[in-house]
Amino acid sequence: MRMYDIIEKKKKGLELSTEEIKDTILGYTRGEIPDYQMSALLMAIYFKGMSDRERYDLTMAMRDSGDILDLSSINGVKIDKHSTGGVGDKVTLVLAPIIAAIGVPVAKMSGRGLGHTGGTIDKLEAFPGFNVVISESQFINQVNDIGIAVTGQSANLAPADKKLYALRDLTATVDEISLITSSIMSKKLAAGTDAIVLDVTVGHGAFMKNKEDALRLANSMVTIGKMANKKISAVLTNMNEPLGYAVGNNLEVIEAINALKGKGPDDLMQVVYALGSQMIKFSGIEEDEDKAVELMKETISSGKAFDKFKEFIKAQNGDVSYASDISKFSRASIIKEVVAKTDGYVADINAQSIGLASMILGGGREELDDIIDMSVGVIMNKKVGMKVSAGDILAYVHANDMKKADNAVEMIENAYQFSSSCIEEWPMILEIVR
Amino acid sequence: MRMYDIIEKKKKGLELSTEEIKDTILGYTRGEIPDYQMSALLMAIYFKGMSDRERYDLTMAMRDSGDILDLSSINGVKIDKHSTGGVGDKVTLVLAPIIAAIGVPVAKMSGRGLGHTGGTIDKLEAFPGFNVVISESQFINQVNDIGIAVTGQSANLAPADKKLYALRDLTATVDEISLITSSIMSKKLAAGTDAIVLDVTVGHGAFMKNKEDALRLANSMVTIGKMANKKISAVLTNMNEPLGYAVGNNLEVIEAINALKGKGPDDLMQVVYALGSQMIKFSGIEEDEDKAVELMKETISSGKAFDKFKEFIKAQNGDVSYASDISKFSRASIIKEVVAKTDGYVADINAQSIGLASMILGGGREELDDIIDMSVGVIMNKKVGMKVSAGDILAYVHANDMKKADNAVEMIENAYQFSSSCIEEWPMILEIVR
Repeated sequence: MRMYDIIEKKKKGLELSTEEIKDTILGYTRGEIPDYQMSALLMAIYFKGMSDRERYDLTMAMRDSGDILDLSSINGVKIDKHSTGGVGDKVTLVLAPIIAAIGVPVAKMSGRGLGHTGGTIDKLEAFPGFNVVISESQFINQVNDIGIAVTGQSANLAPADKKLYALRDLTATVDEISLITSSIMSKKLAAGTDAIVLDVTVGHGAFMKNKEDALRLANSMVTIGKMANKKISAVLTNMNEPLGYAVGNNLEVIEAINALKGKGPDDLMQVVYALGSQMIKFSGIEEDEDKAVELMKETISSGKAFDKFKEFIKAQNGDVSYASDISKFSRASIIKEVVAKTDGYVADINAQSIGLASMILGGGREELDDIIDMSVGVIMNKKVGMKVSAGDILAYVHANDMKKADNAVEMIENAYQFSSSCIEEWPMILEIVR
Repeated sequence: MRMYDIIEKKKKGLELSTEEIKDTILGYTRGEIPDYQMSALLMAIYFKGMSDRERYDLTMAMRDSGDILDLSSINGVKIDKHSTGGVGDKVTLVLAPIIAAIGVPVAKMSGRGLGHTGGTIDKLEAFPGFNVVISESQFINQVNDIGIAVTGQSANLAPADKKLYALRDLTATVDEISLITSSIMSKKLAAGTDAIVLDVTVGHGAFMKNKEDALRLANSMVTIGKMANKKISAVLTNMNEPLGYAVGNNLEVIEAINALKGKGPDDLMQVVYALGSQMIKFSGIEEDEDKAVELMKETISSGKAFDKFKEFIKAQNGDVSYASDISKFSRASIIKEVVAKTDGYVADINAQSIGLASMILGGGREELDDIIDMSVGVIMNKKVGMKVSAGDILAYVHANDMKKADNAVEMIENAYQFSSSCIEEWPMILEIVR
């Protein structure tokens, strides 16, 4: 079938066949189908959507466009965790050592990516010497030996997604459920795990701004995962304000270390427990989710989680003394206070603005080859629901440039909204789609 | 505003500003906006449409992408006639001399185009020596002298439309009213006349298959024409079966000559009179449409129309002896009969199939540099509503190749549908939008 007919068919709202979807993705990846036809099809999909069957076929065609990892030589149930992204998201740094200590193998391929801060890989490199470029055999041996390894995403996973995403990003066709589903799930399925736990963030700081849309996406991804015979669940988490108090690379690593030592912020820990209990359930170690949470808490209080973290950093050549002495992490030269101008309750903190403040301070990447300033960022002092008096400190800006610090202070001031009365907060865990 | 934001805005169903539309068309024509963004916008327009104001702005931006003709040195009210296309459409050949004889200046720029037969230009070249490549001053002088001139479309009219149409043709975005309107009207407005009469064909052999769609298009084009301060009307004409009896270049020229001599098929003449009366009304010569039709009939019966035709052919160096002796036109070497296999009434003739038959016989162009066989084509013998007995001749195929003739016979057989009872025909003139 010609690409013209495929566009016309979708334009009319008809279902594309498995063969049509395969040919389209293959042809586009090979460069045989031009961008202008693909973008017309993407816009038609935006308006007419795709059935579950089409989404599955699209996901599988994109998965099959590149390598599919073989993790069969790792013992136990392999589980991947993925977040749709947020501000102050240091969940992986805390969660991975906890579940590894419990016996769930963590074989994580992580990226650097673009955003308010670096990715997990960048944050791990806060430990001098930490090596993310490890061979496949070293990666597998390390997981089998100590239960945890993290590697930079070097394999050629779902190249069709890379090409499609770049086009969607230029043609206003990013925000469509079928296309988001296939983009995320094609990479997750190529990563070769037995189970997948999704953190679907909702709110100002997330891609999905409201619960309805987030739920639609969660249901779509879980459906496709099940069609591909994976154990899968999705946890909808509150990303209206930043997660925890720290936004910025070293600041977040320190917060994660504190969390592993039992001093984690409540909102962060709720997300860690919700995701972790799903992973532990899938591993077969503990089917009851409440008991799985207890297990995680014990692992922290006994020191086993923090020990596992240090073991992991050491195994990949990181200077583990930083974990024991957090004063070793480089600090920003300027710390400026953001001060409340009125009395009231914090009604809202625009997480996206806090993320952008961290970005302009130098903590994030706009382009893939930008260099990240590990020391800068924001420490929140007042979070949503807290009572504030004029003159109270709302947040601290950590900066290495006075002009950037001033800009960040202004952005953060504007990100806060106050109410005269106590406000009702969203729960941290909005829903779990199983 | 960035192109991304313009796509996003239209995707949400919002109205684009005059400036946004101008910048988009200018940027695309200059090659600054890539095809893949334009095709995404076109698909968003397909789903969200455009307001009259947006259609007007789009039309004007496309008009302004190239030359705008200045016909001010031609005396009288200049009127253009445009058809959305059909099978057996020889209307211009008949209509132009009639109204020129009445005193309406005919300054026509015509194309060769692609299709079942050649364009008007090709058919005029059936007269040996006929010259379509005439200078602007010769063109204007001839109109002022004898009231009629036809030239090949050489000016750079609405190049934005050329580029956009090629993209629409590859991305399944041809069939949207705003885009069709701006494509046709941008060229008509660039042609610089004072008034425009549109022949909007409806049915099997036309782009618009049903009356509702044709009416929407007609209303849209008339609205835009009025916004651009043109006198304009649109006549919806029946194109379910071919117009007249002849399909093919020389065959149509002969039918047109017969029509100018008072022996025109009724359906063809109804269309000629409906369009002509609009043109005569716009010229100010006769406001009453019925009286205008009478004037046209008198012009034919008095021989003035045919005389004007010959004067016109001669003025452009054509061998006018062919008009007086139609046996001079080259004839196909093979004539095959298409014979009815059953009794009944002709219920339907798929005009598109008849057009395709003419095409495969060699009478039309698939590519712009194909050479047309002027002699081949089809002469219909039975039209819709006629009573037929098995063995009657339905049509004659004029061919120069036996294999092609056999194919054409089969196609024409399949194009006919019969009914046991008398059927109700569409009127030739379905509606006039003023």
